[in-house]
Amino acid sequence: MIVVLAGGVGAARFLQGVVQVVPPEEITIIANTGDDREFYGLHVSPDVDIVMYTLAGIVDEQQGWGIRNDTGHTMQRLIDLGHEDWFKLGDQDLATHIHRTMLLHQGQSLSTITEGLRQRMGIKPHIIPMSDNPVATHIQTPTGLIHFEEYFAKNHCSDEVLGVEFIGAHEAKPAPGVIDAIKQADAVLVAPSNPIVSIGTILSVPGIHDALHETSGMVVAVSPLVGGAPIKGPADKLMRALHMEASAVGITRHYRDFLDVMVIDQQDAHLAEQVEDLGIPCVVTDTIMRDMEHKTALARTVIRAAGLTY
Amino acid sequence: MIVVLAGGVGAARFLQGVVQVVPPEEITIIANTGDDREFYGLHVSPDVDIVMYTLAGIVDEQQGWGIRNDTGHTMQRLIDLGHEDWFKLGDQDLATHIHRTMLLHQGQSLSTITEGLRQRMGIKPHIIPMSDNPVATHIQTPTGLIHFEEYFAKNHCSDEVLGVEFIGAHEAKPAPGVIDAIKQADAVLVAPSNPIVSIGTILSVPGIHDALHETSGMVVAVSPLVGGAPIKGPADKLMRALHMEASAVGITRHYRDFLDVMVIDQQDAHLAEQVEDLGIPCVVTDTIMRDMEHKTALARTVIRAAGLTY
Repeated sequence: MIVVLAGGVGAARFLQGVVQVVPPEEITIIANTGDDREFYGLHVSPDVDIVMYTLAGIVDEQQGWGIRNDTGHTMQRLIDLGHEDWFKLGDQDLATHIHRTMLLHQGQSLSTITEGLRQRMGIKPHIIPMSDNPVATHIQTPTGLIHFEEYFAKNHCSDEVLGVEFIGAHEAKPAPGVIDAIKQADAVLVAPSNPIVSIGTILSVPGIHDALHETSGMVVAVSPLVGGAPIKGPADKLMRALHMEASAVGITRHYRDFLDVMVIDQQDAHLAEQVEDLGIPCVVTDTIMRDMEHKTALARTVIRAAGLTY
Repeated sequence: MIVVLAGGVGAARFLQGVVQVVPPEEITIIANTGDDREFYGLHVSPDVDIVMYTLAGIVDEQQGWGIRNDTGHTMQRLIDLGHEDWFKLGDQDLATHIHRTMLLHQGQSLSTITEGLRQRMGIKPHIIPMSDNPVATHIQTPTGLIHFEEYFAKNHCSDEVLGVEFIGAHEAKPAPGVIDAIKQADAVLVAPSNPIVSIGTILSVPGIHDALHETSGMVVAVSPLVGGAPIKGPADKLMRALHMEASAVGITRHYRDFLDVMVIDQQDAHLAEQVEDLGIPCVVTDTIMRDMEHKTALARTVIRAAGLTY
């Protein structure tokens, strides 16, 4: 079994490659739910959905999220009824949130609901939300705490960041299967996701960090930063705000205590020595996932770095 | 002030005429909520919505319900996710239900939410749901009680009807403003709606029946049955099941104790004497609302029958 710790778009694209290399049913994805939030009274799990839609082959590849060719008729009418318009939900996409919200109100857990959606969408890898308990990533700004999606989707990362808080994390439990999957994994892959608000959020759930120490499988991370900047999202901004070096080296330091191998982009080859100085073997490769061929090649390199052959 | 007791399609079409004759802001509509039900976890108020969409000029006139030119992308995907498909909700229509459900969960009352929707849609007549408490119309069948929408929309009125129950009615209170509106009305018009599961449901809410006795305004009803059958819906079936005569006469008997004038269709002119034998003055006119001209003419006749001039 291969475990992948996953955020949103970067992780989903990485997983498209992994399923080409590893038999999909041997993959367990542990997904960040820190971005989860109610919109219009509906429970939206942005990262879980991005991963599901991508693996189901229905994602809007251009955006990286949502469903391809989706329409926005419900959303437009919600706006007409006076609702905010900054979090776009397509009509087909809404079915997922309506379905999830209905089952949550009936008392089902997020992980049970996710498993049901996975089966319905014909997705082969297991997908487990990091926790069935609410964990809400918030950004500390000069004007107060705001939800991550407000910082990200509404304000386009324009707020000054003073800190990051995972509200609810202390009380959260890993969802059923998360700890066992990590401990029993042949390898744990840390997807090229935001180290603070995607992977960091997963690590904030008590027990997950310890399980990464205890797993006998290799832990291999792919740096989401290339040339000091992420392909997408505010990873560099958040790292600098938290006084971390916004580079593959900074990421290695962040994961150092449980990491076995770091995979960095060829553009950052000059950083390999610094990474290895931290005691972490470094693999340099092309990490830019411009097409399926590159995604598969990256996955193959990472799997090999984990000491596995398929 | 004119009060109109309203069910769904028949009432909405009647109201299109009434607003041509009476200044719209002088009309208060008391709408049946016995058909309300959660679909996909969303609170749907079929009759309230039919009335709102019709008065907002956005109803699908062909169907009589839903929004004109609406699409069904969310619905199709909900079906793909394993949900039932018998209650069709369009994408734009869904915004109403998402909005309503969100505000209900936030603790707002159905009447407050309806008032907000009315304003947003630019509808001038007041619309008050009969009650803010849940009243659920159920049909007694040989296999047990089923919700009215299951009998109507799912089973297409094919079940044998043994009785009708308004679950929750005993405990329900009229929504704020309902009783005052009736008592102070210059006239109360009973729309050509189902006498059992639309008007009958409204009458089942404690206090409303009494208010109809106490109002100083004339109470004028329009028979929804023409030649012994309704234009739409199962009024005749339900009446026969409850051992009532399925005709304008049976309807007059049903409303007799609070009714001042009965309006029946010209095809039923031969029933006028029987209606008047019940002590209720009878007006015979063309009640078939085939176009706006006929709707307006009917409204004018009804208003005149109520002793009012505009």
